[in-house]
Amino acid sequence: MKIDKISALRALMKDRGIDAYIIPSGDAHSSEYVAEFWQTRAWFSGFTGSNGLVVITKDEAGLWTDGRYFLQAESQLEGSGINLFKVDCPGVPDFKEFLADKLPEGGKLGFDGRVIDVKEYEEICEALESKGVTYAYSEDLVGQLWEDRPSLPVGQAFEHEIRFAGTSAADKLVAVRAKMAENEVCAYLVTALDSIAWLMNIRGHDISFTPVVYAYALITDKEAHVFIDKAKVSGFASKLDAQGFTLHGYDDFTSFLEKLPTDGTLLYDPGKTSVQLAEALPCGMDVKKDMKTDIITALKAAKSDVELRNIRNAYIKESVALVGLVKWIKEHTNISSLTEGDIARKITSLRQEQADFLEDGFVTIAAYGANAAQAHYSPGPVGDSLKAEGFLLVDTGGQYLDGTTDTTRTIPIGPITDEMKRNFTLVLKGNIGLARAVFPEGTNGIQLDSFARMPLWEHGLNYRHGTGHGIGYCLGVHEGPQGISKKSETELEPGMLLSNEPAFYQDGQYGIRTENILAVVEREKTEYGNFYAFETLTFCPIDVSAIDISLMSPDEVTYLNDYHKKTYEVLAPLLGDEDRTWLLNETKPIG
Amino acid sequence: MKIDKISALRALMKDRGIDAYIIPSGDAHSSEYVAEFWQTRAWFSGFTGSNGLVVITKDEAGLWTDGRYFLQAESQLEGSGINLFKVDCPGVPDFKEFLADKLPEGGKLGFDGRVIDVKEYEEICEALESKGVTYAYSEDLVGQLWEDRPSLPVGQAFEHEIRFAGTSAADKLVAVRAKMAENEVCAYLVTALDSIAWLMNIRGHDISFTPVVYAYALITDKEAHVFIDKAKVSGFASKLDAQGFTLHGYDDFTSFLEKLPTDGTLLYDPGKTSVQLAEALPCGMDVKKDMKTDIITALKAAKSDVELRNIRNAYIKESVALVGLVKWIKEHTNISSLTEGDIARKITSLRQEQADFLEDGFVTIAAYGANAAQAHYSPGPVGDSLKAEGFLLVDTGGQYLDGTTDTTRTIPIGPITDEMKRNFTLVLKGNIGLARAVFPEGTNGIQLDSFARMPLWEHGLNYRHGTGHGIGYCLGVHEGPQGISKKSETELEPGMLLSNEPAFYQDGQYGIRTENILAVVEREKTEYGNFYAFETLTFCPIDVSAIDISLMSPDEVTYLNDYHKKTYEVLAPLLGDEDRTWLLNETKPIG
Repeated sequence: MKIDKISALRALMKDRGIDAYIIPSGDAHSSEYVAEFWQTRAWFSGFTGSNGLVVITKDEAGLWTDGRYFLQAESQLEGSGINLFKVDCPGVPDFKEFLADKLPEGGKLGFDGRVIDVKEYEEICEALESKGVTYAYSEDLVGQLWEDRPSLPVGQAFEHEIRFAGTSAADKLVAVRAKMAENEVCAYLVTALDSIAWLMNIRGHDISFTPVVYAYALITDKEAHVFIDKAKVSGFASKLDAQGFTLHGYDDFTSFLEKLPTDGTLLYDPGKTSVQLAEALPCGMDVKKDMKTDIITALKAAKSDVELRNIRNAYIKESVALVGLVKWIKEHTNISSLTEGDIARKITSLRQEQADFLEDGFVTIAAYGANAAQAHYSPGPVGDSLKAEGFLLVDTGGQYLDGTTDTTRTIPIGPITDEMKRNFTLVLKGNIGLARAVFPEGTNGIQLDSFARMPLWEHGLNYRHGTGHGIGYCLGVHEGPQGISKKSETELEPGMLLSNEPAFYQDGQYGIRTENILAVVEREKTEYGNFYAFETLTFCPIDVSAIDISLMSPDEVTYLNDYHKKTYEVLAPLLGDEDRTWLLNETKPIG
Repeated sequence: MKIDKISALRALMKDRGIDAYIIPSGDAHSSEYVAEFWQTRAWFSGFTGSNGLVVITKDEAGLWTDGRYFLQAESQLEGSGINLFKVDCPGVPDFKEFLADKLPEGGKLGFDGRVIDVKEYEEICEALESKGVTYAYSEDLVGQLWEDRPSLPVGQAFEHEIRFAGTSAADKLVAVRAKMAENEVCAYLVTALDSIAWLMNIRGHDISFTPVVYAYALITDKEAHVFIDKAKVSGFASKLDAQGFTLHGYDDFTSFLEKLPTDGTLLYDPGKTSVQLAEALPCGMDVKKDMKTDIITALKAAKSDVELRNIRNAYIKESVALVGLVKWIKEHTNISSLTEGDIARKITSLRQEQADFLEDGFVTIAAYGANAAQAHYSPGPVGDSLKAEGFLLVDTGGQYLDGTTDTTRTIPIGPITDEMKRNFTLVLKGNIGLARAVFPEGTNGIQLDSFARMPLWEHGLNYRHGTGHGIGYCLGVHEGPQGISKKSETELEPGMLLSNEPAFYQDGQYGIRTENILAVVEREKTEYGNFYAFETLTFCPIDVSAIDISLMSPDEVTYLNDYHKKTYEVLAPLLGDEDRTWLLNETKPIG
């Protein structure tokens, strides 16, 4: 069956004179999660992980994916005729090196120009520069083979009411245009779905986990053209019109771009804009694509006061659900009867009791024992059974109309070793070290990342991912440009949200991660500048039974006790008697 | 008198059709300190500060310098007809903006091509791009006016013996050529005097404070040409020959470059190589100037085991001298009879009692009271008188054959306020925070800088300079590429030296800085990589009477007590009875 797809694709490639064809994972908007319509790589290869790229040549077929998916890919690719290439493993070429090796001199590389962005394309061109390769990207060959391909999503969009959005779409357009003028561009091409949802104050159901709608936008000094399935916004089209948006069909964008006037400079983000769109721009148009941060990406990163007020509320609701989950787990009389999948379903059902909840923000990572040593493990619907020993790691989040949440707790569900206790404590110390940071205006995530790692570094330990990512507002759970990591150059500004998730993974044994969400807030203004600090938005107790208190400094103990005291104070009024009594006990001061 | 120089220069400019002429501070080797021969800007303007640049146009004359020198420059420029431009002050153009404004369309800019490096030149060209400016840099016009100009230094150079150098010059050439091969260059132009001194294992007296010799080098796969006043090395010329060096006259370098074969690629550091030299390279020669770090700069930054062993010894000798200084100050019966200049002379005389001492490494900053609030204050030969109250800051260092030292202590010489005590303690906490850091291979100074600042940041305070700089080995007291600051991207490697000098300055009142020198050392290798730590090389007590112990964590108190215990253990055997007894008291545990 799968071999047939490869043969069929090779026949189309031969007909077009194409020597190699790439099938990546994305959609036409560089989304983190994509609608079924765009899941060509999964349909073609059978591999359903979130990250993967297929290359087909005349004689070879390969899939590249990362360490999270090696086992899954091996299993799903079995018998497919597609070989697994393990990304970042010693001796394994990346797909560009593979292409540089396999393509003949002057060969032709094909792909669907809608799903490779300009930045990726330029990197491919650079890697293949010496081979005189030509490119064919006007046809979606896999789409031609995919007979029962799902249609693009057709669900209704809805308004993100002003009480949630805080700022009207008209005012957001004013802010965007001010930045356009500052950057001397007179047209601004927007492809990222969260950017368009933020700008228009709309949300939708086109993609799982991220409440966005498939659309494009082109903003000029005076006009704001949006390309969208008009049926989705028919209920409030006049309102959009009144805010200054002109609606066009989703499929009309390319031809609209082709007819743009060529005076003035157009701005687009090369990491979000497809080759197809960039190629549709008229010859001679002056294009700017070298901005450090895309305009809307920067604007929506710093949350407004109204947004922050709502977000605080969303995190309190989420914390109520989390307390319910942890209590249910810790007090369960027969833990061995539970599977990882049960944990994931439980937190979803607890969230559904909260106001303005939409859906989960990502697949809950409920990872027991050694599974948690895989940083991005997903249990699937069932997953492994739990046992009354060791750690259960739960990383979960929800989409509320008033905020997107993301929390990780590592829960001892039976005896743990001294080593596990030590490492749990080191991770907690890192979490506290970052949460307590105070820093002047102009500080970036590189300068703060080490506070989360130093307790581990002192013991020769580390974790191989960043400490913190930005988060959307009823949008993506991962959002740029800010972060806390060795590479996070963006200066932190008041209103930005960041995860604080130091971790430790012992391969084949257990994983520990403690994650709260932080907001950057103003602290004081002195003659040495503006100083900022973090406000922790998440209120869910840290399991003190897993702490080795001898490793904690007095300041850290005080910080933890204060956090627990505030957690109880904030949540107690919202809890039933049993939950409240349980929480009081869990938040008792230590030390 | 000064007006005459300006008129005379304008006459020469007019004759050459030059509209504006630049007189910078440097020599032909981008040295931090320069010989008298090169002090054209000081001779021309009368301003003797270390940083300054003069621009002369037909109608205007300006000097640009930084905040350290505003008062001095105002005084020294009085009546000169040269206006002071305060660098980094609001509304003050930098000299490039000034030139862009004042130069006519198609005008001509002149300067001595020996003292502007390629990087500076490219920046000037970029700033003046729109004006169609041409450049004249083949003549030193100021030199033509300077009748009694000092000659280039003629003192003897000397060998840096192998017991100090650790590695022979021949072996260093092998290492340099290996890096040249790695970078695919077959010729390497070296202009930095400390690089040449390191490579050849020679030292000299051409420049105050840095024991180097004026020379150039050009290294190829097989040859190593050095351009130097041969009389300086006549005593050991045959040894240099045996190590593989071919000697030429210092003035022969330009004509040698002009005749280089044009096959293969030549490497130079654009931040160290003058326009004159770059222009002397033959047309058609392939040039590489985009390396992140110059080859010898990188090689000499990580000290060898022999160098480190020697450096430890040099720092112990320096610490003996420092203990003598601090005791002398603290026990002085009539502090008001002392001036800042006395302090500087005292430490020099104490150093002279130590083995293998050459000279001071920089002008000692002995800064009393408000003077210390200027980070780079220099008292001159006398300076202010001390009083029996407040802080005396001493930042001082020496050149020994076995190491270059740099230490700062802030000494209470009478009553201090609670605020001063608090800030002294915050600076100390920062110093300890950095000194205790443990970090994996690949970590840079950006990732560690905040540990030195966080205690101040928590109180809305900061200091406006980097936390740490590299240090040479019997060479410059400031040496790249590593550092500890917001901009220090170089990864730290075992053997690198770094200053650890957090500080606090209260304008018009007092300054606090506590500086030790650190060596990066290997700590442990685990499955998470190689972990490094810092070894503190400086042993000089911190004045505990200035500490507010309530602000110190138990860990910090333990660290300080351990440091003091080790200080006593290391120095006691080398001290006389009185000094030893004093040190025992100064290093008693606290808390």
